[in-house]
Amino acid sequence: MHVVVPFAATDPKTRLASVLTSTERSTFARAMLADVLTAIVEADAEPTVVSTAPLDPAALSLEGRLLDAVSVAVDDRPLTEAVNARLPADHDEAATAVVMADLALATPEALERLFSHDTGVAIAPGRSGGTNAVVVSHPDFRVDYHGASYLDHCEIARDVDTHLETIDSFRLSTDIDEPEDLAEVLVHGADTDRAPACLREFGFALETRDGRVGVARLEESTRE
Amino acid sequence: MHVVVPFAATDPKTRLASVLTSTERSTFARAMLADVLTAIVEADAEPTVVSTAPLDPAALSLEGRLLDAVSVAVDDRPLTEAVNARLPADHDEAATAVVMADLALATPEALERLFSHDTGVAIAPGRSGGTNAVVVSHPDFRVDYHGASYLDHCEIARDVDTHLETIDSFRLSTDIDEPEDLAEVLVHGADTDRAPACLREFGFALETRDGRVGVARLEESTRE
Repeated sequence: MHVVVPFAATDPKTRLASVLTSTERSTFARAMLADVLTAIVEADAEPTVVSTAPLDPAALSLEGRLLDAVSVAVDDRPLTEAVNARLPADHDEAATAVVMADLALATPEALERLFSHDTGVAIAPGRSGGTNAVVVSHPDFRVDYHGASYLDHCEIARDVDTHLETIDSFRLSTDIDEPEDLAEVLVHGADTDRAPACLREFGFALETRDGRVGVARLEESTRE
Repeated sequence: MHVVVPFAATDPKTRLASVLTSTERSTFARAMLADVLTAIVEADAEPTVVSTAPLDPAALSLEGRLLDAVSVAVDDRPLTEAVNARLPADHDEAATAVVMADLALATPEALERLFSHDTGVAIAPGRSGGTNAVVVSHPDFRVDYHGASYLDHCEIARDVDTHLETIDSFRLSTDIDEPEDLAEVLVHGADTDRAPACLREFGFALETRDGRVGVARLEESTRE
């Protein structure tokens, strides 16, 4: 399956600005992108990063088969427009998936469950009504990422009279947007993933407060 | 499968106190409990509510087959202790599940995926390192809900040398604890569910802010 991975190459993850510098956010966003691309390739799909600015896949520390499998397209249009330009235009075109670049917990297994839906529309919702990943087969369906996109997409699917399947995945529901989301990366990321390694490199560690897990950052001076 | 559903019958959902009165929290907690019990019975499992105080299942508006299928045990011990007293004590005992009473989005399908794991231990994690639902088959495994329970449970499973499977479910990962969680109930609850109906009755509606869905509550005077 062909998978579009939209990526904001310039000043990404602004909602993490209270805990990460601009350079760190850029590094972390690229680490998450590399993890997402790795999971997509391991799920036997072909990712294209649709980046708002030129991006060298080799700079994502992708190597070998992974590097060969990833292509990059530069498209500085707004997200909705850039994605819609890449969805199937008629019934003969194959289904296309769209997977957000900040789904740091995505695994090949979770993606395979999503990619197995190649009729109509299948959505993995995020928290707060977002659309974290979608597979579009129906040529009349178009995305609209403004506002409460999950509910809008349910309505658009009804309007074009196609079936919408909702994929029940914690991993795909977890987009990493806010400081509190960083804990999920450290709790559920695999040892080989780049995003948790990146956060640990920055000095973040898990911390339990009020029975919930959050993150704490070691002061610069106490880091090795 | 036998399913333990712990329920705090007195002053539940204190973290919702900023948006719901004490009486409303009690009503809402019972609506979520009724939805969870319904999903468990529809998944062909047998729930026992382990309540901190006496509770009449008929007062949960359960009827017919549902009412017959639910039993209640009163146990005022701390959560961890009350649950551990009900887990399998030897290899001959059947697997037991523990499902939290505030998993308002739980569906029979999501629970069936969890209940299908009847060896070792299977956990549906919640956000922030919680353990929202678990199936325990291994007689040496015991729960510990204090602190970061998901990571603790991973460690306990290693200690007793049993396999731990993690169930990837958005629905089971979503416990309704904080005001921002209420939006999930309104976005993903089914029309027949009691918890979203309860919130609507209280005057809550979805509201889109900054591209995310939250809830707003109509003023008493503007409600019908």
